[in-house]
Amino acid sequence: MRTLEVALGARSYPIRIGRGLLHDGSLVRPFLKTSRAVIVTNDVVGPLYLQRMQSALASVGVEAGATVLPDGEAHKDWPTLNLIFDDLLRARCERSTTLIALGGGVVGDMGGFAAACYQRGMPFIQVPTTLLSQVDSSVGGKTAINHPLGKNMIGAFYQPRLVLADIDTLDTLPDRELRAGLAEIIKYGLIRDLPFLEWLEANLERLLARETEALAEAIERSCANKAEVVAADETERGERALLNLGHTFGHAIEAGMGYGAWLHGEAVAAGTMMAAELSRQLGWLSHQDVERVESLFVRAGLPIRGPELSGERYLDLMASDKKVEGGQLRLVLLQKVGKAVIHAEAGQQAILAAIRQRSP
Amino acid sequence: MRTLEVALGARSYPIRIGRGLLHDGSLVRPFLKTSRAVIVTNDVVGPLYLQRMQSALASVGVEAGATVLPDGEAHKDWPTLNLIFDDLLRARCERSTTLIALGGGVVGDMGGFAAACYQRGMPFIQVPTTLLSQVDSSVGGKTAINHPLGKNMIGAFYQPRLVLADIDTLDTLPDRELRAGLAEIIKYGLIRDLPFLEWLEANLERLLARETEALAEAIERSCANKAEVVAADETERGERALLNLGHTFGHAIEAGMGYGAWLHGEAVAAGTMMAAELSRQLGWLSHQDVERVESLFVRAGLPIRGPELSGERYLDLMASDKKVEGGQLRLVLLQKVGKAVIHAEAGQQAILAAIRQRSP
Ligand SMILES: NC(=O)c1ccc[n+]([C@@H]2O[C@H](COP(=O)([O-])OP(=O)(O)OC[C@H]3O[C@@H](n4cnc5c(N)ncnc54)[C@H](O)[C@@H]3O)[C@@H](O)[C@H]2O)c1
Ligand SMILES: NC(=O)c1ccc[n+]([C@@H]2O[C@H](COP(=O)([O-])OP(=O)(O)OC[C@H]3O[C@@H](n4cnc5c(N)ncnc54)[C@H](O)[C@@H]3O)[C@@H](O)[C@H]2O)c1
Ligand SMILES: [Zn+2]
Ligand SMILES: [Zn+2]
Repeated sequence: MRTLEVALGARSYPIRIGRGLLHDGSLVRPFLKTSRAVIVTNDVVGPLYLQRMQSALASVGVEAGATVLPDGEAHKDWPTLNLIFDDLLRARCERSTTLIALGGGVVGDMGGFAAACYQRGMPFIQVPTTLLSQVDSSVGGKTAINHPLGKNMIGAFYQPRLVLADIDTLDTLPDRELRAGLAEIIKYGLIRDLPFLEWLEANLERLLARETEALAEAIERSCANKAEVVAADETERGERALLNLGHTFGHAIEAGMGYGAWLHGEAVAAGTMMAAELSRQLGWLSHQDVERVESLFVRAGLPIRGPELSGERYLDLMASDKKVEGGQLRLVLLQKVGKAVIHAEAGQQAILAAIRQRSP
Repeated sequence: MRTLEVALGARSYPIRIGRGLLHDGSLVRPFLKTSRAVIVTNDVVGPLYLQRMQSALASVGVEAGATVLPDGEAHKDWPTLNLIFDDLLRARCERSTTLIALGGGVVGDMGGFAAACYQRGMPFIQVPTTLLSQVDSSVGGKTAINHPLGKNMIGAFYQPRLVLADIDTLDTLPDRELRAGLAEIIKYGLIRDLPFLEWLEANLERLLARETEALAEAIERSCANKAEVVAADETERGERALLNLGHTFGHAIEAGMGYGAWLHGEAVAAGTMMAAELSRQLGWLSHQDVERVESLFVRAGLPIRGPELSGERYLDLMASDKKVEGGQLRLVLLQKVGKAVIHAEAGQQAILAAIRQRSP
């Protein structure tokens, strides 16, 4: 088992990465305030791992009820969130009861937001079960639900007490979801960790083959990058925004196609290519750099072009993203491979050109 | 104009108290990050004060749209909260746009919670227009909505940047609402400020007559008490819980009668009498002490007995209040007049006896 720490003063917490973690209740017990917990999961992950987690907790004397949500990004909304509140209140859970989110990023984002709001905040643990959630969404305390008019628009910054990334759970993850997770892993290399990018270029096939050691290494190095950024800028006033490489374009793709049609990681991959294209126009990346990024996404089986969506529709959707300030879109671009920057001066024409370059 | 400070480090903020504040946009302007704001109000307060506030803001170059909610505690719920999100998103408000809550405690609690959640947090200003909200709910950062299974169950700790208590707005406040506000004012005297309690005993009729100087004094001293408690214990791990004197009983009354039937302050008054009764049983208060508290509430025109509700129903409703820890009800009682304490050892029989003593 590998352990990392997210350094946030009194709210610091460990990330544990390894196999068999779900079987071991003693990993969780020290982080509970009482012998009571509630597990939030969904109807895909629940049948696979809920009992394993409940037995492990029972073996250390913890009684854990469960709320099973319908699966999918389409249910990352208020009515579904309210199912959690209903259960918490019906079971008379207290402010000191711990909520455990067992699932991918959707379950983690919703479980975390529910924990943030229930009685104005109850303790919360992340047990991410997708590659994407193990390397990204479970770390850093961003929680949210979607609104019909925008993704992740309603939420909170709310840190977990513990993140438990059990690599065993990835055994059942569909290939497409594994690839989507790789998009966020590659992102860390692109924005701030060239040695990691080189490691990925050398080891991508091992990851696709789900080799334990390669997965553990990729998850750890991703979490280390995320933890560093979050510790430096918890609420995204500065550096943390760099983690959004490809995301402003990507969110437009997700929203424009209807949530769920494109996976988040797929949209991020195509969005990153648009950002790379724009960076090239600005003279920051060379043609070869862009091809280097592209070839890694291609090897990972990820899209390198956006869907059939007009440029105007992109601009419109991007304008309602959270990255707008004073009416000006703040884009994350690549100054070079391995170093991202915020750029607020890109003109509409340049943005449109980059989008068109990467549209069917 | 009087000014107080809520000392919370980087999140400190001023409370300004006086007449004519709504007319003066320059009081608000320095607290806005951009020249854009959104006012949240309701269909009772809006017709009275929205234009005054919008003109004042316009005079300092601030464009402020408005969301007008339906009035009342019955609408302190998710669908109504969502009206705010709809408007914020439709108007493409940014993370840096400021939300201004103009109204009583319901508008303040909902506006604050909306600001806490919108894009994971936007700046927020309280402009309380009821006596209760000026002396209590607008200060300290507690925000929430109700859930069918419990009051204020979904919320956040989220501090405003500024509180503007314009005494002018109290001119239109119904008498019954004024009296409800007095309940929370008397509370400060009872729990931690005997000199203030004595001042209230000497000046209650001036408050009922809405004399400016008396109101300003009562609001300032109440806010000073609240600010001190909040600065010492922002998220209610300890001392802040003392502000809930009479509230666990009171919440049971509000829920048991259906939200809105009893005003919050009325329920707090009757609940405080139950707490006083229990304190007497424990030998902390004398008969005379209880009568002293009672006579102040009587003079304020507040109820000193609960409604027709069985003792068992009280216990049931109280058990789902936020003040339960490890299954044990934590009640705020009076060690003496002017000093409250948390008591977690009161048995069911004793609690029932106090409730019955104060039931019809
Ligand atoms: N909070 C953050 O910082 C952050 C960062 C990135 C992404 N996100 C959010 O995360 C979400 C995407 O997360 P995701 O990619 O994990 O999607 P997801 O949670 O929808 O999971 C993908 C699919 O895999 C299933 N699944 C999960 N674990 C499984 C397992 N072990 N075996 C088999 N199936 C499994 C899920 O039920 C789902 O059908 C998006 O909503 C995105 O906005 C949040
Ligand atoms: N956040 C906290 O710390 C805290 C503390 C105490 C109470 N509260 C909450 O506050 C709420 C009660 O607040 P409230 O007593 O202000 O109730 P309220 O907001 O419902 O206002 C009472 C009534 O007066 C009307 N009104 C408001 N200002 C007016 C004015 N100037 N002239 C005429 N009418 C006016 C309102 O529209 C409403 O009909 C409850 O929901 C309670 O839970 C919160
Ligand atoms: Zn992402
Ligand atoms: Zn109150």
